[in-house]
Amino acid sequence: MNVRKAVITAAGKNQRTLPLQTLVDRDGAPKSVLTLLIEEALAAGIESIAVVIQPGAQPAYASAAGIHQGRLTFIEQAEPLGYGHAVACARSFVGEAPFLLLVGDHVYVTMSEFGCARQLVGIATREACSVSAVQATHESKLPFYGVVGGMRVASESGLYQVTEVAEKPTPTEAEQRLLIPGLRSGHYLCYFGLHVLTSTVMDQLCELLAHPPTAAPIHLSTALARLARRERYLAYETVGRRYDLGGKYGLFTAQLALAMAGNDREEVLSQIVELMAQRAR
Amino acid sequence: MNVRKAVITAAGKNQRTLPLQTLVDRDGAPKSVLTLLIEEALAAGIESIAVVIQPGAQPAYASAAGIHQGRLTFIEQAEPLGYGHAVACARSFVGEAPFLLLVGDHVYVTMSEFGCARQLVGIATREACSVSAVQATHESKLPFYGVVGGMRVASESGLYQVTEVAEKPTPTEAEQRLLIPGLRSGHYLCYFGLHVLTSTVMDQLCELLAHPPTAAPIHLSTALARLARRERYLAYETVGRRYDLGGKYGLFTAQLALAMAGNDREEVLSQIVELMAQRAR
Repeated sequence: MNVRKAVITAAGKNQRTLPLQTLVDRDGAPKSVLTLLIEEALAAGIESIAVVIQPGAQPAYASAAGIHQGRLTFIEQAEPLGYGHAVACARSFVGEAPFLLLVGDHVYVTMSEFGCARQLVGIATREACSVSAVQATHESKLPFYGVVGGMRVASESGLYQVTEVAEKPTPTEAEQRLLIPGLRSGHYLCYFGLHVLTSTVMDQLCELLAHPPTAAPIHLSTALARLARRERYLAYETVGRRYDLGGKYGLFTAQLALAMAGNDREEVLSQIVELMAQRAR
Repeated sequence: MNVRKAVITAAGKNQRTLPLQTLVDRDGAPKSVLTLLIEEALAAGIESIAVVIQPGAQPAYASAAGIHQGRLTFIEQAEPLGYGHAVACARSFVGEAPFLLLVGDHVYVTMSEFGCARQLVGIATREACSVSAVQATHESKLPFYGVVGGMRVASESGLYQVTEVAEKPTPTEAEQRLLIPGLRSGHYLCYFGLHVLTSTVMDQLCELLAHPPTAAPIHLSTALARLARRERYLAYETVGRRYDLGGKYGLFTAQLALAMAGNDREEVLSQIVELMAQRAR
């Protein structure tokens, strides 16, 4: 399996402007969030990237992509029909190829030598199947995520065969269907916002959109639940953390995480201490 | 003296996008930097605001102003001829009235009951003259600021009669001309990026632009130095701090300062501690 294409979704109501915000990366260079995501993908061997945007957003996004503009294909989601639909908008870009999927309002901070996307693409290439990045997450945060259930793959730590997928389950539902032995008590494997997927997922999404099982918008996790019944589908705990920029202090926390993991750690720590000292006077 | 107009300059090369970035204010509401500045001005009794921008920037700025759009007049600075020229672009908007001047890449965090701009407008109204906000700043930061020299006004702490103004002086120049008895050793009164100015400043700027004394762009501080020789001109140490967003971690530090001074202090402190604990594992 050769993963050379990526899709970044950035058409959601609250996602619209987040990829255009500026953060300082681990090396100390100020960059747009979009550029950080593009570089995450490029470091994983990706060669071309589709960005799904709201109509009219292209000029701002092209500018935020800076030197990487030439690698991008912009795809407008004409109506806000949800995340599953946004992913399906990239179907003809993807074709029959496997693709890396990223969400435009997350930042990934690796704690390994390799980026989170590269870790994931490495596993998918070796295993030749779809793999979603997951993070063990406390049950208090279940209302924000899709969650997988399954069993450990004995050969490798952090790797799971997925048998169940649920979107924002209740704690009871999670306890009944999604418990994974060996995780810390009260923790579940929640999606990380980073997947390598086969085109089967696009097929499933298009089928769900054509014949919606419910009135609500189509979730990606519904298509992933169907995928798990058809193909080998793995989940992998990447060595790193995701930071969701959509929360109130999301940008601030992501910036802190990037700085703490990077070259400017001492500088930023001393700024924090200096500011606290000023307030205390 | 009645201050009802304000001018925000946001046409500088590095200032262009900073007013469009998002910060969470002290009350916990996410807002553009532009909106924070507009609200700083409105809280000081300002009724109409001119924003000096680069050509073509109006749509993004109008959107970043949100509900305050109706109070704004956009003025394009056709060419990047420096800060003094940018202020002079608002001359016909200002007319003969005194005006509050703010820079688009600063955020002000008061440590008093009243905002920094309101403190300053209060002094200017009472004293019926131009007043610049200043902050005692260590000499290591002289390369970044305009600096005033003068003497204390005996009746009020933090108030100074300005006799000298210098733009980015050397430490030697500052020691010879700008020392103010009573300030902490090695500290000078540097501009805060917030002024209440009479229309004399506009006259001086226009004269300087018509007959430039040097080849370099015209600085506001050159006009303020001339003002000090013609009219009573005061400097006031506002009870609060300015945060320059232009530095590498400027947005981050400003966000931290807003959070530490506001409702979300505990929440943000606990996020910082949680993140440090994760990194330590």
